[in-house]
Amino acid sequence: MSLVVQKYGGSSVSDAEALKRVARRVADTVREGNDVVVTVSAMGDTTDELIDLAQEVSDSPDPREMDILLTAGERISMALLAMAIGSEGIPAQAFTGPQAGVITTEHHGRARIIDVAPGRLQKALADGKVAIVAGFQGLNQETQDVTTLGRGGSDTTAVALAAALGADVCEIYTDVDGVFSADPRIVPAARKLDRITYEEMLDMAASGAKVLMPRCVEYARRFTVPIHVRSSFSGLEGTWVVGETEEGDEMEDPIIAGVAHDKSEAKITVTGVPDVPGSAARLFEAVARADVNIDMIVQNVSATNTGVTDISFTLPSAQIPDAIAAIEADSGVIGFEALTTDDTIGKISLIGAGMRSSSGVSAKFFAALRDAGVNIEMITTSDIRISVVTRAEQLEKAVRAVHTAFELDSIEGEAVVYGGTGR
Amino acid sequence: MSLVVQKYGGSSVSDAEALKRVARRVADTVREGNDVVVTVSAMGDTTDELIDLAQEVSDSPDPREMDILLTAGERISMALLAMAIGSEGIPAQAFTGPQAGVITTEHHGRARIIDVAPGRLQKALADGKVAIVAGFQGLNQETQDVTTLGRGGSDTTAVALAAALGADVCEIYTDVDGVFSADPRIVPAARKLDRITYEEMLDMAASGAKVLMPRCVEYARRFTVPIHVRSSFSGLEGTWVVGETEEGDEMEDPIIAGVAHDKSEAKITVTGVPDVPGSAARLFEAVARADVNIDMIVQNVSATNTGVTDISFTLPSAQIPDAIAAIEADSGVIGFEALTTDDTIGKISLIGAGMRSSSGVSAKFFAALRDAGVNIEMITTSDIRISVVTRAEQLEKAVRAVHTAFELDSIEGEAVVYGGTGR
Repeated sequence: MSLVVQKYGGSSVSDAEALKRVARRVADTVREGNDVVVTVSAMGDTTDELIDLAQEVSDSPDPREMDILLTAGERISMALLAMAIGSEGIPAQAFTGPQAGVITTEHHGRARIIDVAPGRLQKALADGKVAIVAGFQGLNQETQDVTTLGRGGSDTTAVALAAALGADVCEIYTDVDGVFSADPRIVPAARKLDRITYEEMLDMAASGAKVLMPRCVEYARRFTVPIHVRSSFSGLEGTWVVGETEEGDEMEDPIIAGVAHDKSEAKITVTGVPDVPGSAARLFEAVARADVNIDMIVQNVSATNTGVTDISFTLPSAQIPDAIAAIEADSGVIGFEALTTDDTIGKISLIGAGMRSSSGVSAKFFAALRDAGVNIEMITTSDIRISVVTRAEQLEKAVRAVHTAFELDSIEGEAVVYGGTGR
Repeated sequence: MSLVVQKYGGSSVSDAEALKRVARRVADTVREGNDVVVTVSAMGDTTDELIDLAQEVSDSPDPREMDILLTAGERISMALLAMAIGSEGIPAQAFTGPQAGVITTEHHGRARIIDVAPGRLQKALADGKVAIVAGFQGLNQETQDVTTLGRGGSDTTAVALAAALGADVCEIYTDVDGVFSADPRIVPAARKLDRITYEEMLDMAASGAKVLMPRCVEYARRFTVPIHVRSSFSGLEGTWVVGETEEGDEMEDPIIAGVAHDKSEAKITVTGVPDVPGSAARLFEAVARADVNIDMIVQNVSATNTGVTDISFTLPSAQIPDAIAAIEADSGVIGFEALTTDDTIGKISLIGAGMRSSSGVSAKFFAALRDAGVNIEMITTSDIRISVVTRAEQLEKAVRAVHTAFELDSIEGEAVVYGGTGR
């Protein structure tokens, strides 16, 4: 008998029919002899509707009250799912995040899980019940207030529960069949991956793959929780996200896991920065104070002793105004000639744990881009990833070229089901 | 400075505009120098919509999960109201029933309040905040599960909070201007009462007046909480529900508070019951086991030594099938000839604490009915109430006749605003 944690997103529980379909799947998992804990998101667009209501009554809703409001969505879905599972003849009990023992920091709207005390869930399991847990929420123990976990919170809840309960697997149900070697909407020949390591998945997620959020994968990696990403519609075997393979297996593993892309970033170039120690520090201190998330950074070698240099960095497009304001406010201490912004960039990343031990991967990557006529504007590398910035309009061509060059295209041209991006 | 508890029902917070109107009223009450605690119901039809969803996914939803589901409605309205009050520049914090310290029995769907531990509310008030509390819900301390209070639960929450906090007044906002001497839809000349005693209000409520539920009035009477029933739309002074007047005042009090009516009951007559000690006990034991709420009971004097008698009683129409089944199941021990049911009855009640010390009230009441051609089928009396059962189709005529006979009609024929029945 295994202990299975399952997570269903909002699109899997969008209405009564969808809830009943999920209930049947949960009941089937129980009938197969498993103990089951289910994490569930709010139904369909509930969260967006609640946010709209809040904005109708207040220009700047209090974050504590906002969390009380938003957690009502999961309250509804978890209770209905428990009832629907009960109708399948399987006893089920619903628990809020606080009831399930999910303890978080105090940051309303973006709390982080500190600890999970799963006593009530264990009791429910021992009583032969399915435990349904509201995703995306927890308890600030000091104030006894409910908190929400922010983006990727429901997946993280599922992984945290799986870790605390010592579950055999954490199944993340979504509207795609798993993790793909590239976005099938851009690369029709993309293959569903049977297995991917935590490290690869982290880099895929950080590089634009939307099926899992990095924080959820990071949590799973830290506690070695096997994640199984699969479709709530097809019922097919999906993608397993697991730890590094044993050395003996490694030879059979592909060198490259996949190609990720991201169009959501922009580039800021600061020109004429004094080429003296501390310039970069002053620039990025200013940016950090504005809570801006920097991704890639490139500093040009200063040419012919002009005494000044240019620094470019990428960041989420939405944070451009904050970053510009922060840099201009500190222009006196930083010292620079001009600021330019460019939000028509794209980023393509090649990810694979196997590239650690393989030479020539970078060369092959750059050659593929050159052959496709794609110009490279910035480059960063880690030991399992190479990312380059290109023009946005060249991005899709670049993804297809690299996917083909590394022989990732499915040979049989098998049909791939891809319904959109996961939450 | 006074401490005011205000309660707003679902029709007062049906949408964002209504919430903002309530927020302005709460803010005004604070600006007048009061500490304010607000109890709020779910928005508009939210509760009914959640019940519909539950019935779509389950034929017999678990009562515990049903309470989790239904309490989401108040969670939404309380958070939105706190935000809306914040937008008025007045700090406000929302609390669930459990957070507000409302401790209840374990009966899901119809829990009763055992105690209120209002520490968090007192802290919020001390911090200069308005405390918003979800109505209709509390905590079963043993299981740490949320419970709902059933019919009249939100009003009772407000009164219980007012009692625990020692509030100066509990204002119940509704869609009518107060308590009337009769239902203005039937008696256009009905007057809004400025004041009514707990005992009179209890009898009015138990006799069909819907503006307050008996359990809420009973709670207020026990803890001597002054209730002010008023309109959330007009802002006018409403009706005060208070303790018995001092003896000195009594002379100026009217003898009669009002006329109530009720069409929701039915009558069961059991004929040929053995006229021996214990017959009635056996009959009503059977009915009690079926959880049927008996109202009036009449046993005929057995005629001419037949050795058998007839017993009639009234009960909510909806409970007829349960009552019949219970009586027939015990027909062996009860012993009777026949059962007849009649759901075309009406009940009219005259209520007034002053009738204790006034003679001739009953005679005048029966005379008014006789003059209106209304036949009396059953009679019960208490020291502040006379009720009779009539044909349902004669009920409205009876109410008008009695209202006029006791000079309750408004003299000036003043316009009365009446928008429906309260919750």
